[in-house]
Amino acid sequence: MKKAGVSTVAASTVALTGTEISKADMAFKWKLVTAWPKNFPGLGHGANLLAQMITEMSGGRINVKVYGASELVPAFEVFDAVANGTAEMGHSGSYYWKGKSEAAQFFSAVPFGFTAQEMNAWLYYGGGLELWQELYKPFGLIPVPAGNSGVQMAGWFNREIKSVADLDGLKMRIPGLGGEVLRRAGGTTVNLPGGEIFTALQSHNIDATEWVGPYNDLAFGLHKVAKFYYYPGWHEPGSTIEAVINRKAFDALPKDLQQIVMTACKAANMDMISEYTARNNQALDTLINKHNVSVLPLPDDVLKKLKQISGELIAEMAAKDPAVKKVYESVVGFRSQVSRWTEISELAFLKARAL
Amino acid sequence: MKKAGVSTVAASTVALTGTEISKADMAFKWKLVTAWPKNFPGLGHGANLLAQMITEMSGGRINVKVYGASELVPAFEVFDAVANGTAEMGHSGSYYWKGKSEAAQFFSAVPFGFTAQEMNAWLYYGGGLELWQELYKPFGLIPVPAGNSGVQMAGWFNREIKSVADLDGLKMRIPGLGGEVLRRAGGTTVNLPGGEIFTALQSHNIDATEWVGPYNDLAFGLHKVAKFYYYPGWHEPGSTIEAVINRKAFDALPKDLQQIVMTACKAANMDMISEYTARNNQALDTLINKHNVSVLPLPDDVLKKLKQISGELIAEMAAKDPAVKKVYESVVGFRSQVSRWTEISELAFLKARAL
Repeated sequence: MKKAGVSTVAASTVALTGTEISKADMAFKWKLVTAWPKNFPGLGHGANLLAQMITEMSGGRINVKVYGASELVPAFEVFDAVANGTAEMGHSGSYYWKGKSEAAQFFSAVPFGFTAQEMNAWLYYGGGLELWQELYKPFGLIPVPAGNSGVQMAGWFNREIKSVADLDGLKMRIPGLGGEVLRRAGGTTVNLPGGEIFTALQSHNIDATEWVGPYNDLAFGLHKVAKFYYYPGWHEPGSTIEAVINRKAFDALPKDLQQIVMTACKAANMDMISEYTARNNQALDTLINKHNVSVLPLPDDVLKKLKQISGELIAEMAAKDPAVKKVYESVVGFRSQVSRWTEISELAFLKARAL
Repeated sequence: MKKAGVSTVAASTVALTGTEISKADMAFKWKLVTAWPKNFPGLGHGANLLAQMITEMSGGRINVKVYGASELVPAFEVFDAVANGTAEMGHSGSYYWKGKSEAAQFFSAVPFGFTAQEMNAWLYYGGGLELWQELYKPFGLIPVPAGNSGVQMAGWFNREIKSVADLDGLKMRIPGLGGEVLRRAGGTTVNLPGGEIFTALQSHNIDATEWVGPYNDLAFGLHKVAKFYYYPGWHEPGSTIEAVINRKAFDALPKDLQQIVMTACKAANMDMISEYTARNNQALDTLINKHNVSVLPLPDDVLKKLKQISGELIAEMAAKDPAVKKVYESVVGFRSQVSRWTEISELAFLKARAL
């Protein structure tokens, strides 16, 4: 009778190393829905890798199948689809969910906020992840970091930016908090899905757009329809890609599989920033040397103005919304400490290497 | 008869979710030997976490036990102990193994080389890991990155460094390539284990020492015996911590457990840099505000000189040794590309944030 106590999970494990039981019948079947096109460079590759790591580490006891945007649900319905159990897991960016809570945006990117390294320090060792999981808890979701784009580019422009005055009337595709900052600086913003950016720039419906960085931007061909490529990405200095997990599906897993899912997300986080760092530099080389792109810095007075407005914006948001306030205080508290350390470590070293 | 084909590995898996078979009898028992004291902040914690992740993800099918330095073998015998099978896995730094190959040092840190983020880009996506695994192959070892300290500090000094002339006759504890650079700049170097640094500084047997960064240095109390704390850590801008795995032990694992070991190392890599980034900033705060430490930048002309010598040193090493040459060419090739990307992303953003 004790033998019967061996659960189906255990039986499925035997099946994987033995020969008799069909593993497909026994395994947890998970759907991973994403906010990106299937196999999209960087982001889509990160989702594939995450699914692969979970499937392989579990010996197929969790079988994760990836769905690109709109294959199962549209990009902007990833959150709801995982919350309601249509899928067990999602791969997206938390700034898409400001309709659920304005505070969600702080877990992807804050203008003039954290680099990837600082963001991970805040999430894993600075209380960030606890705040994030608390925020998503009422929705039945567990969020964890599962990737990072690193510092993005400021974007592609057909208007030269020489001073703050040049932002006046600038029509730019820039979503999220960065978009609100640009509006306060005198610009107008439009929201366009990635697939419509090229045509909008080409037909002069917009003067400028941000996207990601050289690796993704080159793939989109944006250098063909814009004159200037500005840096740095003040609005997204290290955007976290999130994995969201349905809590009931997670709770149904035995402990070892729970640990596999969480560790895979952490490894995916390391992998994506490494891929972007390596591939952005190759793509930048191609943009400069093959396509003669003009890569220009935003002037200091423009950056100063945008930084000032960014600070004002997030402070105002915090004053209006207690959920934002809690996250905001953690972010600005950690930033004031970590930025001092970063200035004498990363920044000082990079300056020395460039001497 | 087919039932008998179910391997002991499968049986041990059943045991873990079932109730009848003692799991301890069936599991792979791995020893993880480290080059650090047990539970040492950062490095030792990273080894513990790595062992824990492997043990938990495998449901105990691999049971990893951590041994601090000298508990099973001395710190500087980790490489040999894993190579000869005394332990299945080690946690250390590749620059300790220059006696095996001078090229090994390039996989931990190169003066004026890579930051943590760039190092990981090179290792995972720039061909670095393949070169590293090729280098360790004749020893029956598989190396993988499993942590990173981030940019370290230049060190603790009882002599003020105002110009290159102040390096003349400076007696400093600084191992590895950094030490050779300092000797060429006029200093003399000594090699001391961590535990002897405090007394050597206190008794003025040395004028200066490097160690790691605020988190580890504060724990050692170095602020009590040195006047000046210099930055940045030009000699170790992002030191990789390695896991070395005995190849035969790895090959004996089923595929899912192999994937668990490798993914745990990648997750540990993410975790350690996050811990150091968070804790260094807290420790720096304590050093400055509680202990009134003078935190000073090395002057630009000193950094320029050290950079010039560093470049000469590694080029000379490459000219003398074909194994070094192969790694050197990959490192300098990747650095010339990645440093351009880093300058317009990380460096430009950090400058903008500090405006």
